[in-house]
Amino acid sequence: MKLLEERILKDGQIREGSILKVDAFLNHQLDIGLMQEIGKEFARIFADAGINKILTIEASGIAIASIAAQYFGNVPVVFAKKAKSKNLDGSLYTSVVHSYTYGKDFNVTLSQKFLGPQDNVLVIDDFLASGKAMKGLLDICGQAGCKVAGIGICIEKGFQNGGRELREQGYKVASLAIVDHFNEDDTLTFREQ
Amino acid sequence: MKLLEERILKDGQIREGSILKVDAFLNHQLDIGLMQEIGKEFARIFADAGINKILTIEASGIAIASIAAQYFGNVPVVFAKKAKSKNLDGSLYTSVVHSYTYGKDFNVTLSQKFLGPQDNVLVIDDFLASGKAMKGLLDICGQAGCKVAGIGICIEKGFQNGGRELREQGYKVASLAIVDHFNEDDTLTFREQ
Repeated sequence: MKLLEERILKDGQIREGSILKVDAFLNHQLDIGLMQEIGKEFARIFADAGINKILTIEASGIAIASIAAQYFGNVPVVFAKKAKSKNLDGSLYTSVVHSYTYGKDFNVTLSQKFLGPQDNVLVIDDFLASGKAMKGLLDICGQAGCKVAGIGICIEKGFQNGGRELREQGYKVASLAIVDHFNEDDTLTFREQ
Repeated sequence: MKLLEERILKDGQIREGSILKVDAFLNHQLDIGLMQEIGKEFARIFADAGINKILTIEASGIAIASIAAQYFGNVPVVFAKKAKSKNLDGSLYTSVVHSYTYGKDFNVTLSQKFLGPQDNVLVIDDFLASGKAMKGLLDICGQAGCKVAGIGICIEKGFQNGGRELREQGYKVASLAIVDHFNEDDTLTFREQ
């Protein structure tokens, strides 16, 4: 998606350790107009997939998933939580995920009443790198017995294994921008799609 | 807002300790159509306020703020974070908040580059009860030197002090549903507005 690639080049910041900061428009401050275009693109790619629910994980995925849902006929969005709160009672799906960003393991939880075999799900997140958070979400989908119609990612780090592994497992992964290299001159190389 | 009150009566669940669970439509599973109506209502109430940014806090506020921003001409949304991550570098505004839901104090942080004196902010959240999270956000607004044009809340617990105190301080607080009583027969009484 050219619009997203151009925005990454314009406002993204490269940090040591192959960290790409996009907090000016995607995951701290949010450019809602850009998110609408991202949502339309996911809807175009998965137009015939019969999606009836969008699954994401707090916090950065929530805005992207919510805006995108509007282009899927306002299907419900459900987001997995990263900590168990007092207000999450009832039966939960749980999976353990390691977060590189936060430097620790955490539980991902989802109330069982909001995901089940009747659901045909698009899983959305802002980043895909090693795929640990996504595998946690897919683990929850497996526990729920729902169908995973596809995975929609804004930015994939193509030099890490998450995307390749998920595609080898047969998932339809749509990454709107795939960064294949962080170059030494502080530029990025995107994969041709 | 009748639509929201009716939805609370239909799908909200009352728990001991004056807890109102609305996870079926507002803060775990998200009804995007309802959120659009909520966003339109905030836009109607604050139509003449000249808002150029929406501030919220992760996680539940993000969807509401992002959908609402569309009815304010796609103004940027910025959300405060509840934990310091490795990727939050640069200068931060910080405030300490006690969470009843999570049973502990936590830091609320926001990158200084995303809020400043040039901003005229609508602060949005899903719930207002004692107002602790909101006071943390307003503390950050004070540090940033921005103008607070208003506060938009989906559900206020009118029997707690947060809303009253904020109104006494001069803030324009728009709560779309105010629960004044949890009755003994498991019904709710909404404030007439």
